[in-house]
Amino acid sequence: MKTGHGTIETPTILPVINPNKLLIAPKDLPRYGADALITNSYIFWKDYRQEVIDQGIHNFLDFNGPIMTDSGAFQLMQYGDIDVSNRDIIKFQEKIGVDIGVILDVPVSSQEKKDMARGVAETIKRAKEAQKYIKGSDVLWSGPVQGGVHLDLVRKTAKEMARLDFAIHPIGSVVPLLVKYRFAPHIDIIRTAKEELPSNRPVHLFGAGHPMFFAFAVAMGVDLFDSAAYSLYAQEGRYITQSGTEQLDELDYLPCSCPICSKHSAEEIRESPARTKLLAEHNLYVTFEEIRTIKQAITEKTLWELLELRARSHPALLECMGRFAEQSDYLATQDPLTKKHFFYLSEFSKCRTEIARVREMTQKIGGKKIALGPFGKVPLSVAECYPFTQTVLPGPIKIPKTKNDINKLKAASLYWFGIDLFKDDMKIDVSRRTHKIRAVYHDNKIFASVRAQDFMILLHEAARVLHKKTKKFRVQLVRDKDVEKYAREGRSVFAKFVKKADPAIVPGQEVLVVDSKGRLLAAGEALLTAKEMGEFKRGVAVKVRWSDR
Amino acid sequence: MKTGHGTIETPTILPVINPNKLLIAPKDLPRYGADALITNSYIFWKDYRQEVIDQGIHNFLDFNGPIMTDSGAFQLMQYGDIDVSNRDIIKFQEKIGVDIGVILDVPVSSQEKKDMARGVAETIKRAKEAQKYIKGSDVLWSGPVQGGVHLDLVRKTAKEMARLDFAIHPIGSVVPLLVKYRFAPHIDIIRTAKEELPSNRPVHLFGAGHPMFFAFAVAMGVDLFDSAAYSLYAQEGRYITQSGTEQLDELDYLPCSCPICSKHSAEEIRESPARTKLLAEHNLYVTFEEIRTIKQAITEKTLWELLELRARSHPALLECMGRFAEQSDYLATQDPLTKKHFFYLSEFSKCRTEIARVREMTQKIGGKKIALGPFGKVPLSVAECYPFTQTVLPGPIKIPKTKNDINKLKAASLYWFGIDLFKDDMKIDVSRRTHKIRAVYHDNKIFASVRAQDFMILLHEAARVLHKKTKKFRVQLVRDKDVEKYAREGRSVFAKFVKKADPAIVPGQEVLVVDSKGRLLAAGEALLTAKEMGEFKRGVAVKVRWSDR
Repeated sequence: MKTGHGTIETPTILPVINPNKLLIAPKDLPRYGADALITNSYIFWKDYRQEVIDQGIHNFLDFNGPIMTDSGAFQLMQYGDIDVSNRDIIKFQEKIGVDIGVILDVPVSSQEKKDMARGVAETIKRAKEAQKYIKGSDVLWSGPVQGGVHLDLVRKTAKEMARLDFAIHPIGSVVPLLVKYRFAPHIDIIRTAKEELPSNRPVHLFGAGHPMFFAFAVAMGVDLFDSAAYSLYAQEGRYITQSGTEQLDELDYLPCSCPICSKHSAEEIRESPARTKLLAEHNLYVTFEEIRTIKQAITEKTLWELLELRARSHPALLECMGRFAEQSDYLATQDPLTKKHFFYLSEFSKCRTEIARVREMTQKIGGKKIALGPFGKVPLSVAECYPFTQTVLPGPIKIPKTKNDINKLKAASLYWFGIDLFKDDMKIDVSRRTHKIRAVYHDNKIFASVRAQDFMILLHEAARVLHKKTKKFRVQLVRDKDVEKYAREGRSVFAKFVKKADPAIVPGQEVLVVDSKGRLLAAGEALLTAKEMGEFKRGVAVKVRWSDR
Repeated sequence: MKTGHGTIETPTILPVINPNKLLIAPKDLPRYGADALITNSYIFWKDYRQEVIDQGIHNFLDFNGPIMTDSGAFQLMQYGDIDVSNRDIIKFQEKIGVDIGVILDVPVSSQEKKDMARGVAETIKRAKEAQKYIKGSDVLWSGPVQGGVHLDLVRKTAKEMARLDFAIHPIGSVVPLLVKYRFAPHIDIIRTAKEELPSNRPVHLFGAGHPMFFAFAVAMGVDLFDSAAYSLYAQEGRYITQSGTEQLDELDYLPCSCPICSKHSAEEIRESPARTKLLAEHNLYVTFEEIRTIKQAITEKTLWELLELRARSHPALLECMGRFAEQSDYLATQDPLTKKHFFYLSEFSKCRTEIARVREMTQKIGGKKIALGPFGKVPLSVAECYPFTQTVLPGPIKIPKTKNDINKLKAASLYWFGIDLFKDDMKIDVSRRTHKIRAVYHDNKIFASVRAQDFMILLHEAARVLHKKTKKFRVQLVRDKDVEKYAREGRSVFAKFVKKADPAIVPGQEVLVVDSKGRLLAAGEALLTAKEMGEFKRGVAVKVRWSDR
């Protein structure tokens, strides 16, 4: 997310800064891993209006990174009424120079449907009214999705918000449920909102500040969190762990290696005059440890494994995992095609997208079969393809070696594309060092190559064959001479030039790039889902490997 | 463990220091959490013999904490022969002033039974021979248990070692299995050794340096580990995590909050000239984070929950958990009676000792029943007793309130002791603040009190009734006037004065302290198992609450 004060790499959490109770100075936040912070514009409006208008919020807080402000909506919910209008708090946020602002939406604390419906109606009204105030603004404006556990209300608000000109969509979470560790309902709330919201607008989950739930929320599509928890818990003597919160007074040992816990014993922190600050620091360190753990899991595509692990840190997360594992239809439309590994970690592993995909992708492949854990019987000829050799089961697996011949490639082609792209007389190039297939040649040209880690068939001249045999796997560009020319030159394809894409495309899929008339231009790897290709205004949709120069 | 250079609090790990390749200076080790180190006396014998004899090993290494040395047995295994005898290396260790030494045992790298049997026979011979050299020594001498996966050989060695005068027993682990992440066989190896070894001698698991397996080994009874892994992995660019080891080169984010990972990005470490040292430091920090996490779990009695969590970080640990969960007969003899909580985290939770105990302890209790997760139907009258109100399931539990009357106490008494200790006319004292039962009075004396957190019936005058009605729950003291007098005065009972104890006693049990003729002296809480009470030479066996003054 690009803001007026630098880029925020998502997913991340914005620590809440209360200017009246500074436990950690804003300028020190990067030390713990924070790129950005969130604070409440209503407090500034009430207590520091003129100073902050004069100095600007970045100077006032002595923080040069992105600043998001909430609007006082929380106070509105708590006290029923506040002395500022939607228009005034929007203009105020604009004036003090925040990077991300929020309209004065109307969250309600009651989970009664009729109260919630009234809050939703008023929030939508204000969001529409806000459009004229935020027009042409440099601030990234947030349009909150309310509705709580009432999914029809969540869907209604999300649908309305999607049509309006917002940059970000916070989801009003159900704090009373979170406080009771009832995380599972959020799986449905987030899914419902995400289904209606454009995929290019980041989603913020309001008020979910405990790291134990982050991985699940991110897996459902949440990009941003905010946390007052690090500070509020510290003030109550509470110490955040991955499994919940412990009372510092009840800890004999500190189950953490952050700079605070490596340097002090539990007793030292208890008896320190800086006790509350030390606790807040620990709480922030472990919060960002979880953010980094999630980011690493995303880049190596092991987020499911992380969820299975987190699921066993608390029964409430086990419940949450159960709900998450039921979303395979939703996940199938976006889960990457190949990953670092497939760890079998529990019955939940059977709900992974790989299981259904393997069933479909191996349908047409005959020959000898072998039993392989949760996949059942799979053809030996595709054993080198993801996820088979990448599967780790409890106990050893023995997969017999297969010959490096054209039949293995034909099977892999059927597996990845449902079509056999290869001819019997093609020449196979095998690595002398690793004895793995590197590429296949035909008529002295590279026809296809093979990625060792997952035996993916990478398209070169084979793109022509695939293009002739099927209308699937296509990413169609908008009609534009330059765009077509760039693709034909082998440059990466940007999402904003994609007109439409085969809805079955997920990241990692080998795809064909075609022009507005369906003519083949290039081939390469999809980095986005079909939906994202249609909606993203920035970023690469297809990393092109081969082009029809 | 008390040594010549301070106390080692177990469980812990001793970092391996190689004097020829010092990545981290010994004197800096405490910064990472290490109390003690281990090094190899054979290297000193070969390369620095006279210097280290002159200076003493503590001065030579500039480390003032406990130092353990291995004997060169590893080199013997690797190279088949070394130029030092059992006697000489024992005398050398003594002379250079080590705190913990090891005889020159004979580990074998082959897992063939006949090779292993030869190694075992030679090790036992040398252990016996060593007895005359170590007699009267201040060094804590270690008698290694060999046998690998051959449990009969493990049992044979352990039996022999138990008879000899050693302070510590290392178990030779099966390094080739560990390297392949085959942890499960160690569950059986450790159990077999522990069954034969005296419970008052710490057990060291040789060569198991990766923290991912620590919690399981500790749960099976291991007290000490050693790790060269932190340094060897660092030299190979490998980064230790709770789920295994990652290549630093493949990390985009550092999933850790240790001082190294909080201060540097993955890229910074990769490009730092101090890369190897930084990696070693991280590896040590996370190793000791796991040690502290385990210690905290032990003190709050949530080690099972920690194992269920660790089980999901790698399929090999899932396999290990499966093997561990099958040890409930072994665990039942030592698992504490009440704990902080009972998290239901998977099917494995059904193997916890609580399940079988509840079945037995509720047998005689009638009245209304309620369904409670893995426990099935349990009497409502004991719902406040551990583990019922302490149970956390995925999803909410509703237990109806019960009245604070004598019937609830009668049920709890049947539950904890199998006997009803109460009479209908006893007076119940209820806390005004919490509305919980605090104590029960009879004839103006405290008859019993109730611990709020687990509704344990704590014995006061009720001890007399229990003593009259059963011969169970007894801890009998040696015949000694002073010992009897101290107990009658209400002082804690030390293990060394226990003659015998009801074999069913586990920590947390309310017990009766009786004299050599079976007469009641005192009552209180057992802190040890019956076996430990018989074998420990130090420490409190019973924390006395009431005594017959």
